[in-house]
Amino acid sequence: MTSCPAAGGPAAGSFMNGTRLIARLALAALLAAAAGPAPVPAADKSAEYRAVVDRLRQTGLAGERAAEFLARIVSAGPRLTGSPQAAAAVEITRRLMEEQGLARVHTEPVEVGRWVRGEIAEAAVAASPRRPAVPLAVCALGGSVATPDRGLAAPVIEVGSLDEVDTLGDRVRGRIVFYNRPMDRRLAEPFAAYGGAADQRVGGASRAARHGAVAVLVRSLTFRTDRHPHTGRLVYEPGTTRIPAAAIATADADLLSRLLREEKNVAVSLRLDCRDLGRTASANVVGEITGSEIPEEIVLLGGHLDSWDLSVGAHDDAAGCAVALEALALLRDLGLKPRRTVRAVAFMDEEFGGTGGRAYAASPLRRGERHIVAAESDRGGFTPAALAIGGRDGRARDRIMPYAQLFAPFGAASVVPGGGGVDVAPLVEQGAAPAAVLVNAQSYFDVHHSALDVLDAVQPRELELQAIILAALAWIMAEEGI
Amino acid sequence: MTSCPAAGGPAAGSFMNGTRLIARLALAALLAAAAGPAPVPAADKSAEYRAVVDRLRQTGLAGERAAEFLARIVSAGPRLTGSPQAAAAVEITRRLMEEQGLARVHTEPVEVGRWVRGEIAEAAVAASPRRPAVPLAVCALGGSVATPDRGLAAPVIEVGSLDEVDTLGDRVRGRIVFYNRPMDRRLAEPFAAYGGAADQRVGGASRAARHGAVAVLVRSLTFRTDRHPHTGRLVYEPGTTRIPAAAIATADADLLSRLLREEKNVAVSLRLDCRDLGRTASANVVGEITGSEIPEEIVLLGGHLDSWDLSVGAHDDAAGCAVALEALALLRDLGLKPRRTVRAVAFMDEEFGGTGGRAYAASPLRRGERHIVAAESDRGGFTPAALAIGGRDGRARDRIMPYAQLFAPFGAASVVPGGGGVDVAPLVEQGAAPAAVLVNAQSYFDVHHSALDVLDAVQPRELELQAIILAALAWIMAEEGI
Repeated sequence: MTSCPAAGGPAAGSFMNGTRLIARLALAALLAAAAGPAPVPAADKSAEYRAVVDRLRQTGLAGERAAEFLARIVSAGPRLTGSPQAAAAVEITRRLMEEQGLARVHTEPVEVGRWVRGEIAEAAVAASPRRPAVPLAVCALGGSVATPDRGLAAPVIEVGSLDEVDTLGDRVRGRIVFYNRPMDRRLAEPFAAYGGAADQRVGGASRAARHGAVAVLVRSLTFRTDRHPHTGRLVYEPGTTRIPAAAIATADADLLSRLLREEKNVAVSLRLDCRDLGRTASANVVGEITGSEIPEEIVLLGGHLDSWDLSVGAHDDAAGCAVALEALALLRDLGLKPRRTVRAVAFMDEEFGGTGGRAYAASPLRRGERHIVAAESDRGGFTPAALAIGGRDGRARDRIMPYAQLFAPFGAASVVPGGGGVDVAPLVEQGAAPAAVLVNAQSYFDVHHSALDVLDAVQPRELELQAIILAALAWIMAEEGI
Repeated sequence: MTSCPAAGGPAAGSFMNGTRLIARLALAALLAAAAGPAPVPAADKSAEYRAVVDRLRQTGLAGERAAEFLARIVSAGPRLTGSPQAAAAVEITRRLMEEQGLARVHTEPVEVGRWVRGEIAEAAVAASPRRPAVPLAVCALGGSVATPDRGLAAPVIEVGSLDEVDTLGDRVRGRIVFYNRPMDRRLAEPFAAYGGAADQRVGGASRAARHGAVAVLVRSLTFRTDRHPHTGRLVYEPGTTRIPAAAIATADADLLSRLLREEKNVAVSLRLDCRDLGRTASANVVGEITGSEIPEEIVLLGGHLDSWDLSVGAHDDAAGCAVALEALALLRDLGLKPRRTVRAVAFMDEEFGGTGGRAYAASPLRRGERHIVAAESDRGGFTPAALAIGGRDGRARDRIMPYAQLFAPFGAASVVPGGGGVDVAPLVEQGAAPAAVLVNAQSYFDVHHSALDVLDAVQPRELELQAIILAALAWIMAEEGI
């Protein structure tokens, strides 16, 4: 496009001047007090919040601090649960919280598993015993057992679902089961497509093992056709033989599938040396702006500090920790003193069991605390599309709905029921209303759990918009309560 | 995030089955006809459109055809108005339209200017006559005259606005005026920030020339701090001396500004060999699905085929041409026969004068035609955020509003007043309702008019979502009329 277009959306410049407005409201409050007690009309509250949100916008978008926090966190490297890099990230995040002047900055212990990928992830396909083997791009799924030292080789059978394995029954015995059902591209919502295909990765190994398979390959969960395998956690069923499981890049899955259609004796060799090192000590990182009136009621903003090990997990989920921290830093910049506590938590071990979320909720430190909202940011650092807020009785959403239009300039065109995630699920069970900034995530699974989830994949302004929305949500809920 | 999240938005999988629904509606219509004439209730129309939109989704998102069209168009290279590459793109686009089975595929002549950047764009700053010169990353602004062959050198004066130049008056004489007002980062809407800074690029040269300046440097219009200059058109005022004008990369603008604050004798040398080659023949490319009942009434979907010359202009605006073409291709895939004509137009010369849009509207071929909607796609190939539709009396928007929620699964959470652009402006003057898919454009100006606007910057699914919305808009408006 050329110069001077029509504005593409709500121009934030038309917002009211915050300071002047607050002064006017203070005067109005004084006059109202003089006239005797009267409930503050909803309209006045709306103007007050609008002024706050306008200041959050001006302060937040003036810089790229959320992206700077992100860069600091990913400087620890890939932060697999239990790894030295994850431990380094705990220390970095604790320091970031202190630098931002948060109160009661501390870590809370979490016992986590430690699985290591090892050095070797090799696979090759031979279309027939006489044809040369072609290497396949694979990586172990998180939690997989190793193959025998020298690897294994077996004929391959392709399936589209776990149920198909049951139907095949004994025919998978001695074979490598190749789960190749793609994410359904026709779904506009990428998370729906992901959710519809992830069962292959999570449960595929044990289902195949039940019928005697020796290993599984699982098509990577991405819409892209490329040579980057995407890892992720598998869950072995108790009592079922643990067989090696690897993700295979989509381009290589397509190749393997074509060979299986065209040839009779397709065999794959697989070699993985991943292993489980048992339990180890790790931590959640916690900091807050303590509530001035009702400190024991808490609005929590969280993300997870651990990542997968194929890249630094910039979107998943250093972004979530960065926006939680930035939301609190923005409230501090503005000198706002919330009535209730606003707390940032960088959870450990979302990817490998959710022990951090459970440890936080079960900690003795929670005694006397009541979490009214628990917002989890774990959908990538993309432009906001909506604000989701849930809860059994809808009361948290009722509190936000009158101010829904305040979020629109930042992309959150509506407030919808929803929110939540692995880390805050235990708090939600205890009665906290879940919340989340929903995002435009069409490119999330291009990078998710792969070598491509790097710092440069995150756009600083998109990230900052999430922080502004979270800060506004936290401020309003800390003022309103439930 | 880990596996099986809560759905992040409306799950498209919950849509109704299109074919079955149409069969049911057809039966209902037969029964209604047997019972005598009765107006079709609005609810039935909504269900019919929902079924169409569902089929558009399933067909569109199954592939990445919009991105394939995009790749074909950018294969011509950077397509500056009047260039051989632009001519090649005309032929490529004509062929694409024929391959997709569009009707009445043809080109329409446009006389355009031809400006060439030349080979040389050199600038350097010396903090003082004794200090070594430091090269600056610059590029000529579109339409700029050249410097003298051996370049020019002059002291620099930094300004924040055109008005400041007037205030300085004679103090800019003999100097290079350096416009350094950044896009206002605090505005959440990037187009508003762009619109608020573009006057420096468009009108800065002539304003400085009025007061005797010898050249201008203009801070590149991007939020990023990097070394890529961003070009764009300038407009020389008639009767004012034409002085050379260059964009300077933001990192270099910051450097220059710092030197100006710290040193007394900062001088810049500048050398440009761009030139104007006069008028030349070019063309718009037109193809359509001719209306089955009222072919003379037209819903136009357009983008512009020309680009700047520093890259292939993937977002700006091969994307706009690609989504217009894909929208028609989708309607054809579905075998839909619109009552009114749906037409795709790849306009020439949006960037360098808008001659293509004017030539189209003024063509004798328009006799007897009435454009009811003219949608322009020129905001980058990003995820949709809203659907804008305008028009003097709001009647076009009234037609779409009952079906607004059909666009939501593709990101267009609302239907708002607006739309339009350089290419369709002449049609809008003639009474067409403007329209546009508004997008999440936080990263648009990172690449806009620079070397970074390359194919890889466009995400195929984000692009496809725009095409689906345009196809749905076109279908509904071609059915409804105004």
